[in-house]
Amino acid sequence: MEKVVNAIQDSYPEDFSWCYGCGQLNNSGHHFRTGWQGEQTITIYEPLPEHTAIPGFVYGGLIASLIDCHGTGSSSLALHQKNGHEVGTGTPPRFVTASLHVDFLKPTPQGVPLKAIGTVEEIHPKKWKVHTEVYAQDVLCAKGEVVAVVMPSTFASQQL
Amino acid sequence: MEKVVNAIQDSYPEDFSWCYGCGQLNNSGHHFRTGWQGEQTITIYEPLPEHTAIPGFVYGGLIASLIDCHGTGSSSLALHQKNGHEVGTGTPPRFVTASLHVDFLKPTPQGVPLKAIGTVEEIHPKKWKVHTEVYAQDVLCAKGEVVAVVMPSTFASQQL
Repeated sequence: MEKVVNAIQDSYPEDFSWCYGCGQLNNSGHHFRTGWQGEQTITIYEPLPEHTAIPGFVYGGLIASLIDCHGTGSSSLALHQKNGHEVGTGTPPRFVTASLHVDFLKPTPQGVPLKAIGTVEEIHPKKWKVHTEVYAQDVLCAKGEVVAVVMPSTFASQQL
Repeated sequence: MEKVVNAIQDSYPEDFSWCYGCGQLNNSGHHFRTGWQGEQTITIYEPLPEHTAIPGFVYGGLIASLIDCHGTGSSSLALHQKNGHEVGTGTPPRFVTASLHVDFLKPTPQGVPLKAIGTVEEIHPKKWKVHTEVYAQDVLCAKGEVVAVVMPSTFASQQL
């Protein structure tokens, strides 16, 4: 399977590497990895057999998760680059998702890698929008849009 | 933990009970269960410890999955009722998600049950919209909107 070589998640600080979607320290999670592909971003993931909607097809929650973490990862890639850093140098900014939208266009087959391809748009220095297309074997199965914001320093203190 | 007694997913036909989100036959999945609460719908789920965003908070993909399956389940409840059936009698219609939108309003704490509360709106006999609010200990953490359509009989034949 094609693999992302320089993934932004590999450089997230340890405290921010526990996400079930994309945290490299979360042993149970998906380990989504997001890197540049030209001027776009890419995340590649093959869903597991249990990630079923009806047998043979991927359930929507997995696709939403992929688009979500691809969105925060792509935003981090873009701002890190804007700040003058290559992937693998420096500490990238960590984003959180403000909103997520997914249009499910076709049933998404299991047993093949999915590719999320993102186009990143800056809408504010701390707020980015990522337009994503999810392909299975070059067939467009879903489109998504994530608005991601730089994680506020108060994020974890917003206790109930 | 409060429990949904009469869940629509308990009546899904066996072929449609494998969803990672809400299929009772998927041993690895979340087993979301959706029922009526007055004129609204409810799904209750306590995320697992590994469903982390940053330690202590639930990752967005789980919340998106909850809103997604709550949306298809709520649509099934509503159409089944419109067709004159109580939950637990007859075979409910199975919906698929056309679109999913989530606004993440606050960090969602781990270690407490989440309640998704839905309001169902018919926009076409085979197309329903579900407005959902996700609460953690009575604090509104996320809002969602799902457009769900009755699963076409050709769904599984849309091979690539």
